[in-house]
Amino acid sequence: MTAGANKPVIVLVHPQLGQNIGKAARAMLNFGLTEMRLVKPRDGWPNPDAGPAASGADIVLEQAAVFETVEDAITDCNQVFASTVRRRDLVMPVLGPDEMAERITNAPGKSAILFGRERSGLETEEVALANAIVTVPINPEFASLNLAQAVILLAYEWSKRRDLAQPTSKETEPTAPHGELEGLIGQLNGELEAKGYFHPPSRTKATKNTLRTIFTKACWSSREVKAVRGIIRALVGAPRRR
Amino acid sequence: MTAGANKPVIVLVHPQLGQNIGKAARAMLNFGLTEMRLVKPRDGWPNPDAGPAASGADIVLEQAAVFETVEDAITDCNQVFASTVRRRDLVMPVLGPDEMAERITNAPGKSAILFGRERSGLETEEVALANAIVTVPINPEFASLNLAQAVILLAYEWSKRRDLAQPTSKETEPTAPHGELEGLIGQLNGELEAKGYFHPPSRTKATKNTLRTIFTKACWSSREVKAVRGIIRALVGAPRRR
Repeated sequence: MTAGANKPVIVLVHPQLGQNIGKAARAMLNFGLTEMRLVKPRDGWPNPDAGPAASGADIVLEQAAVFETVEDAITDCNQVFASTVRRRDLVMPVLGPDEMAERITNAPGKSAILFGRERSGLETEEVALANAIVTVPINPEFASLNLAQAVILLAYEWSKRRDLAQPTSKETEPTAPHGELEGLIGQLNGELEAKGYFHPPSRTKATKNTLRTIFTKACWSSREVKAVRGIIRALVGAPRRR
Repeated sequence: MTAGANKPVIVLVHPQLGQNIGKAARAMLNFGLTEMRLVKPRDGWPNPDAGPAASGADIVLEQAAVFETVEDAITDCNQVFASTVRRRDLVMPVLGPDEMAERITNAPGKSAILFGRERSGLETEEVALANAIVTVPINPEFASLNLAQAVILLAYEWSKRRDLAQPTSKETEPTAPHGELEGLIGQLNGELEAKGYFHPPSRTKATKNTLRTIFTKACWSSREVKAVRGIIRALVGAPRRR
C-alpha cells in the first residue's frame, strides 16, 4: 500500500460555523487525514473563522473542495459511511468506529465519511447515500459529541488501524538478564544476614522467597539493577564525606 | 464487578482556562467518566467559564475535587498514567491508549490519568509520579491535540474496553495506593541523604527522579511496600542481636 492510500475523505454536509470547519481540519490532520470536502457551507467558503480554529492545519483548509450536493461530493468514492446515530427510518448496517476503520483500510478504492450539520446532523436522504452508518458508542444518558470530536474519534480509529505501530513498552529498556538480578538478590540477602534480618531461622527460607518475588516482579533493566545495587551499598555504608 | 468499578479518575494538573475544564468534563461524561480532580487550577475553583463549556456535564464539575499537589490528588490511586509524549528525561514504560485501557480495566484498584497544563503539559516531576506514560499515536508532522481531545480519546478507549472486562483474579494483589509509595520513597530519600548519596547537588533532582521511576515501575502491593520499607530499615540499622 502506498502512503496516502485508503485515507478517507471527510465530508462536512452543510456545516454552519467556520470555526467548526477549522476545528474539524485540526482533528483530521492530527491523524494524518488531509482531504476535506464541504457541501454548501452555510456561510460560504472560504470562511475567515476557519483558519484560526485550525491551529495550523491550514493545508487541509486550503485544499478543501466545495460541492453543491452530497452526491457530487462522493461521486468518486467507493465506500461511504454516514456518521450518525442509528436511524429508525432507515434499514442499514450500523458499524462501530473500528469496524468502519477496518473496512476503509482493507477495501480497495476511496472512502468517504459524512458528517452532518452541527445542530441537526444528517438528513434521511443524506444518510441513505451511504453504504453504512457509523456510530460512536456513547453514554446513553449524555450523548454530546460535537463535530470536531466526532471527526477526531473516527480519524483516530482509522489511524490506529492503518498503523499498528503503537508506542509500546517494548521500546523501553529490556529487563536485565537473570544473572544480574541474582547478583542483586545475593547482595541484598548477604547484607540482610549481616544485620540479623532473617529471624527466626525457621522463617528464613520463606522470607527469602518473598524478597525474591518482590524484586523479580519489578522487571528492572540492567541500568536499574545497578542503581538499586548502588542504593543498597549506600544504605549499609558509612556516610560519605563531602 | 459492580457498575462503575475501574472508572479512571481524570486529574487535570494546573489547568489554565475554565473553558477547557468544562470541555474536559463534557468529553469525560460522553464516555461515562464522572470523577474529575483539579490540581491548583490557575484561576481558582469554581470557575464561571467551566459550566457553559461543559454543555450539560454539570455533574462532573459539581463533584470535581481540588488538590494542592499531584501527590495529594493521587494518594488513593493504585495505578497512575501520565498523558504526554515520550520523555527523553525519564525511562518509563510508554503505552498506547488501548494498552492503558486494558490495564485500567483488568487491574484491581483505582486508576488515575494525569493531564498537564494546556500550554506546557506535565513537568518531569509530575510525569515521574506515574507508573507509565500513555501516548496517543499521532501525526508526527502535526501533533496538536488540545486538552479535551486528549481526554476524549483516552475516555473513548477506556469505554470500549470496559465491556470486554475480564473478571479479575482475586489472587492478584492491587498495587499499593500512591500515598504508601510516597512513604517508601520519602523514607529512602531521607536515608540516602543521610549517607551523602546525592552528590553532586546539581544531580540530586535527576537522581531522585530516577529512583522514583525505578520504585514506581515495580507496581508493588501494600504488603510489598511494607516489606521493602522493612528492608531499608534493616539495611541502615545496627545489626540485630540474636
